[in-house]
Amino acid sequence: MNPIKVGLLGVGVVGSGTFNVLKRNQEEIRGRAGRGIEIVMVAARDVARAKAIVGDDVDVVNDPLLVVNHPDIEIVVEVIGGCTVAKDLVLKAIANGKHVATANKALLAEHGGEIFAAARERSVAVAFEGAVAVSIPIIKALREGLSGNRIEWVAGIINGTTNFILSEMRDKGLAFDVVLKEAQRLGYAESDPTFDIEGIDAAHKATLLAAIAFGIPVQFDKAHVEGITRLDQADIANAERLGYRIKLLGIAKRTDAGIELRVHPALVPARRLIANVEGSMNAVMVKSDAAGVTMYYGAGAGSEQTASAVIADLIDITRLATAQHEHRVPYLAFQPHAMAQTPILPMAEIRTGYYLRIQVRDQPGVLADITRILAGHGISIDGMQQKAPAERERTEIIMLTHQTREKNILAAIADMEALSTVPAPVTMLRVEELA
Amino acid sequence: MNPIKVGLLGVGVVGSGTFNVLKRNQEEIRGRAGRGIEIVMVAARDVARAKAIVGDDVDVVNDPLLVVNHPDIEIVVEVIGGCTVAKDLVLKAIANGKHVATANKALLAEHGGEIFAAARERSVAVAFEGAVAVSIPIIKALREGLSGNRIEWVAGIINGTTNFILSEMRDKGLAFDVVLKEAQRLGYAESDPTFDIEGIDAAHKATLLAAIAFGIPVQFDKAHVEGITRLDQADIANAERLGYRIKLLGIAKRTDAGIELRVHPALVPARRLIANVEGSMNAVMVKSDAAGVTMYYGAGAGSEQTASAVIADLIDITRLATAQHEHRVPYLAFQPHAMAQTPILPMAEIRTGYYLRIQVRDQPGVLADITRILAGHGISIDGMQQKAPAERERTEIIMLTHQTREKNILAAIADMEALSTVPAPVTMLRVEELA
Repeated sequence: MNPIKVGLLGVGVVGSGTFNVLKRNQEEIRGRAGRGIEIVMVAARDVARAKAIVGDDVDVVNDPLLVVNHPDIEIVVEVIGGCTVAKDLVLKAIANGKHVATANKALLAEHGGEIFAAARERSVAVAFEGAVAVSIPIIKALREGLSGNRIEWVAGIINGTTNFILSEMRDKGLAFDVVLKEAQRLGYAESDPTFDIEGIDAAHKATLLAAIAFGIPVQFDKAHVEGITRLDQADIANAERLGYRIKLLGIAKRTDAGIELRVHPALVPARRLIANVEGSMNAVMVKSDAAGVTMYYGAGAGSEQTASAVIADLIDITRLATAQHEHRVPYLAFQPHAMAQTPILPMAEIRTGYYLRIQVRDQPGVLADITRILAGHGISIDGMQQKAPAERERTEIIMLTHQTREKNILAAIADMEALSTVPAPVTMLRVEELA
Repeated sequence: MNPIKVGLLGVGVVGSGTFNVLKRNQEEIRGRAGRGIEIVMVAARDVARAKAIVGDDVDVVNDPLLVVNHPDIEIVVEVIGGCTVAKDLVLKAIANGKHVATANKALLAEHGGEIFAAARERSVAVAFEGAVAVSIPIIKALREGLSGNRIEWVAGIINGTTNFILSEMRDKGLAFDVVLKEAQRLGYAESDPTFDIEGIDAAHKATLLAAIAFGIPVQFDKAHVEGITRLDQADIANAERLGYRIKLLGIAKRTDAGIELRVHPALVPARRLIANVEGSMNAVMVKSDAAGVTMYYGAGAGSEQTASAVIADLIDITRLATAQHEHRVPYLAFQPHAMAQTPILPMAEIRTGYYLRIQVRDQPGVLADITRILAGHGISIDGMQQKAPAERERTEIIMLTHQTREKNILAAIADMEALSTVPAPVTMLRVEELA
């Protein structure tokens, strides 16, 4: 089966990321989707710049209508942003019977009603995983993963810029204006940061989450929107002292009287996992009747992070657009012919760090023997503690090693246990940095 | 369209949870799936007990073959567990052309190759979201949400029993045997806890995660399986002192030489979010090339928590089994006719806790005035601090309130600001317990 043809509107940060990841992972993606996915035409304001990104195999045009009107293109990816040109193009693509994938939260939060109605009319998909907490498949979790639940509330850190600013204000005790300038310098905040710091971006996302959680229309105009610009450093410190952290939360909550839909800074107990989500990371908590509390964590912005979501949407559309059995989600994620025969390694061949607890007789030269053994097996030491002797003649050495192969550490342990100064088996545990 | 008919094998903890949640949320589920989902027959060893759970509208039979051979049943839910009877029934259901949803990790980790091949042959679904970290849609996140990524590693706390035991050992400094007994008393550990504490259950799950992350066959026999029974309390304390926590991790990692697939206790830096996942909760971290690190957190066991996953599978199958447009995933999660008109509340009507910072002149009676105002608006105080005066004649009162309506707190603030002893606007922030 020929690859499904995709047109790309916009080759900025997200567009170029989408192009690059789709190209880099094309074999794996074909193995998962059951069909290749190929960007055949891109529309860009700066054609020369776009050509430099996508190369010669792809048509680059200045007029986006050439993409949405292209007869062979089945899916249009809209990553222009904003609500003017993007809206017209999305509606035109839908009218032309094309599926749409978009990361444009503003467009969907403000005009979703009109767009989804048009898409329903033409029986096309409008996929928007990239519109909320990009790296985290939260739309899928809410819309499909928790579909058996009655959802009670959703509360999330869904704007990375403001979470970075709040983390820095707390961590370094700096004022809002100072941290904002730093965020702008580091690229975490736009030169005009209004959308982020006034809570508008988070409210767009909360509006979408509320709609899919509770089955209500998108109603951005009803959202309470409050940013972090009026937050006083004193209150951040007070919150800390009371056992709380201040986070900008997007909240959608079902009550007997109606839905609460609000974005504002809030004190969150410091012991909650979500209170410890720092820097530009995002996290969304969901409370539902059967699953209980679940939480989803990941980067909330970035070129390839957003591409991850856009491409997942492309794969979903590809699978559903051609609904024979082989285009369903494969049992083990990949089509049978695309399964790998990569071997599973024996434990001796794995690499990780190690923790060793070595009981030794308290004699001169013991530590020298042990470090010589480790060095002899090519193992370097990351840290060491010697414990006060529990018995008079014994002491314990506790050691962390840098990464090595398990066979090396096992050989070193065997050598240590052969020493007359090591009277008991060495305790070994693995260390996983998970960085 | 008539409801899709489901047969249930097993009415134990998971089976009864599935029945109850499906019944309780039937309206919402129909709104999401585009079609009702109805359990019409259940097979149980104890028919009388099963009848007491499912009532008179459902056929209860003793012979599970009556379910898998029933001509009208399109989906069979297998929640018997184990690899003997369950395997025969699943294969028979598949042979009869029925879709299967199962929460049976042992069955799929040990016989997945045979079962998926049979299902592929008959073009039926075998869905297993409930097999790993039940409340968390991690199968969906890996297989669909991150489908555009090349996955580098997956590392998870995927056994609640052992995480509960490790949390208690660390928190209370107790020995393994003592905590195991407590876990058994509380129902977190089985009377025969071998599968959990020896890491077998986690290895079943890690085997499934490895398969869908890397596109390799399920190969439980190649997994390294190590439990927590030989963990010494001393090492838990040492880890803590070094800035680590010991967690039982299931790890699947891609390396140039092959796949690492292993379950063992590991030291994890205490500053990682996953190191702070306590008690019987589960969490899975995924590192992939485009999305970066994402993490998924929730309950790893429980009747309704598992039901959440099983029903999500039923909804997926229902949507895909009949692949017309209206059975795709709806744009906003619910079918258009099932959208709710629940109002979004004005901010005055929301309920939450509040933090107040009140600057006051340091005069007798000020605090009495403020507490009187709060009481007058029906607001009770959760905590209070009075700060050392910043200026000579002023001091600051910091207050946390219990939940109240926003209009009450706004009225109270207005009254406070009218006091001659309150010279500046009161700072108000909302408190979200997210419990």
